[in-house]
Amino acid sequence: MQTIIADRRAFARALDLATSVADRRSTIPICQTVNIVANGALRFEATDLDTFATVEIGYIGEPIAPFALKGPEKVGRALRQLDSDTVSLSALVDVAPGGRPDLRAPIASGQFRSSMATMPSDDFPTQAPIGHEEFAVDLGQAELALIARVIPAISTEETRYYLNGICVDRIDEWTYRFVATDGHRLMIADVPLPGAVGIIPDRTVIPRRFVNTVMRHFARTKDAVRLTYGRRLLENKPDKGLAPELGGAPLVSVAGKVGPARLALTSKLIDGTYPEYTRVIPSTFAHTIRASRSELLRAIRGLVALADGKVRALKIEAVDGGVRLSTRAIDLGDGSFVVPAEHGFKPETMIVGFNGQYLLDCLTSLRGEEVQFDLDASHEHAPAAIHDPADTAFRCVLMPMRV
Amino acid sequence: MQTIIADRRAFARALDLATSVADRRSTIPICQTVNIVANGALRFEATDLDTFATVEIGYIGEPIAPFALKGPEKVGRALRQLDSDTVSLSALVDVAPGGRPDLRAPIASGQFRSSMATMPSDDFPTQAPIGHEEFAVDLGQAELALIARVIPAISTEETRYYLNGICVDRIDEWTYRFVATDGHRLMIADVPLPGAVGIIPDRTVIPRRFVNTVMRHFARTKDAVRLTYGRRLLENKPDKGLAPELGGAPLVSVAGKVGPARLALTSKLIDGTYPEYTRVIPSTFAHTIRASRSELLRAIRGLVALADGKVRALKIEAVDGGVRLSTRAIDLGDGSFVVPAEHGFKPETMIVGFNGQYLLDCLTSLRGEEVQFDLDASHEHAPAAIHDPADTAFRCVLMPMRV
Repeated sequence: MQTIIADRRAFARALDLATSVADRRSTIPICQTVNIVANGALRFEATDLDTFATVEIGYIGEPIAPFALKGPEKVGRALRQLDSDTVSLSALVDVAPGGRPDLRAPIASGQFRSSMATMPSDDFPTQAPIGHEEFAVDLGQAELALIARVIPAISTEETRYYLNGICVDRIDEWTYRFVATDGHRLMIADVPLPGAVGIIPDRTVIPRRFVNTVMRHFARTKDAVRLTYGRRLLENKPDKGLAPELGGAPLVSVAGKVGPARLALTSKLIDGTYPEYTRVIPSTFAHTIRASRSELLRAIRGLVALADGKVRALKIEAVDGGVRLSTRAIDLGDGSFVVPAEHGFKPETMIVGFNGQYLLDCLTSLRGEEVQFDLDASHEHAPAAIHDPADTAFRCVLMPMRV
Repeated sequence: MQTIIADRRAFARALDLATSVADRRSTIPICQTVNIVANGALRFEATDLDTFATVEIGYIGEPIAPFALKGPEKVGRALRQLDSDTVSLSALVDVAPGGRPDLRAPIASGQFRSSMATMPSDDFPTQAPIGHEEFAVDLGQAELALIARVIPAISTEETRYYLNGICVDRIDEWTYRFVATDGHRLMIADVPLPGAVGIIPDRTVIPRRFVNTVMRHFARTKDAVRLTYGRRLLENKPDKGLAPELGGAPLVSVAGKVGPARLALTSKLIDGTYPEYTRVIPSTFAHTIRASRSELLRAIRGLVALADGKVRALKIEAVDGGVRLSTRAIDLGDGSFVVPAEHGFKPETMIVGFNGQYLLDCLTSLRGEEVQFDLDASHEHAPAAIHDPADTAFRCVLMPMRV
């Protein structure tokens, strides 16, 4: 009998990685499955029709015909409960001989035997990987972490779908800018990528779901991951010339090792025009406020907790030697907190309001000891730039709220 | 100004403990509040009209008038974010002088100032504690843990409300029996309580919500907690005799230390007749099966994961030198697992089915290395007794399922 054998932990991990991309609530049954192919490597494929995942691990044994496994999350959970070192997968068995074929996949591990429902592998919407790379770069942990800092500002509002991702711009020879905004706040990370080769067009927008999936799986890997931008190769047709024909819309792909498996995630890009965000970045500042980031965070966390679910506006006023942060929750009370700060205002001459949660996201994405607010002369209406004076790589721009 | 000062951590912890009993979704606004009284100790009171909680911590300062604090969970969360050692509470301030009174409680800690909405303390349904103890016992960690083992079997079905709790019976001089059942399974813990004084009537039913609240707060305390059963004292009326008059239905109370606070939880008992559960405990057994608990758990966890959400029946068959557990999820596949076991059956002569989740709960509540199933001669229809042969304190009775 044709049987392949793989490491149980690696198999369960690979199945889980693929399952996390499969869409369990999809109305298309094949999108709930994981396609399993043993062909040189044991490959698990899954897609929600936006992101396509392939996970590869090693195996030994005779090749078996590919199949799409139903209920992959249940198989993964069952395998994690077991304690045998290996798992074996045998050729499909038809459990309804004579009738409509009902092919089951025999999966066994130690004393565990199962026979799982499948769908035909031919129906699985397998997608070819990027064949023609137009841009490629290796991202280490530091680069991934810096890009991840802009994620809180990505819009989740569907009407401005072109904001539902991270915009990539090249700003000099080897520095790339990653931008996210939802119209209320803007976060910018400038990441030096000296190893990048090729060209990624300015204003390329990488979808939020793909970014989140990438960060979820790769945020704790030790090895660098490879980000590529490009197109598929189309199949050769005899009446065309020798040059390979490129297919369809541009794609972005991130691939790397996750534990015992190699994971590649590929997605289409957002097809829309990212707005001219540079126009909202203030360039001239009348005033600055400097304070300790941890003290501000403590004050804002306390006040946001107090006003939770009622109001979100946080008022900031200049006082002697500091700023007073305050919030007012109708019917529930109000709170204030004075934080020492350096500023050039006379007491009581400056009042500005921000959304407390947005301010919290912004201060959490910053990393340093100190934080600086740059305010316009008309600070009540113009956006504020918030950054760490010791770190020029990350910046946040926040629209004020009327208070 | 009248102000009291307390330890910030103790205050936040006490407020959280009380808030956990307050009913945030109650349609009665006062049940969403925590009543705060500074009178010898700083007392926090909360109730969902079933359970009544009082939490006490120390304080220093002048007495202030009691008040019911609105949004207590928000105040607690804000206080946890701060870093000052103390918190101060001042006399209420009317923020709408001249109009309808709107009394606010000034709560401050370090640079944090707040003014929280209140309701009149007189409206708070404060309940007197048990005044006449009919039964009292100290429960240590071991006793609480043993009682907690029957919790999974408590019924959550409202129609048979009298099963929604733990039934207490005295079975000999100093052993008390704690029983829970939902009609499908029955769990019994026999707990020696030599220090118990007084009498608790047989078939006293302690409500599930109260049991869960007690376990949540006291399951990790080092000190023993005191369980009491009794009634309130009614207020003396001049036309009555000298003996104190006892009031209302019997109550159960559990009190003890939780970190810096002293917590007392009091509840009414379930007013219904607990069924004659002893009749379903099988007494004569034709067969026994013995197996390793951890191996059975591994097999059942794997099979339950595989069939998750589809079917719940788990089939157990005698095979040579063991038992085969199997499950079948329609449209999704099936699985089996052979576990070594000692039994007196000829292979293929015994088949019995159980609800997989119930069997899992039962094996999880057991503690030992080994587990023994006692089966009737008509094992397919009669309940099975499941227990640890080395531990007579805990037992489980499970109804079979047709497979």
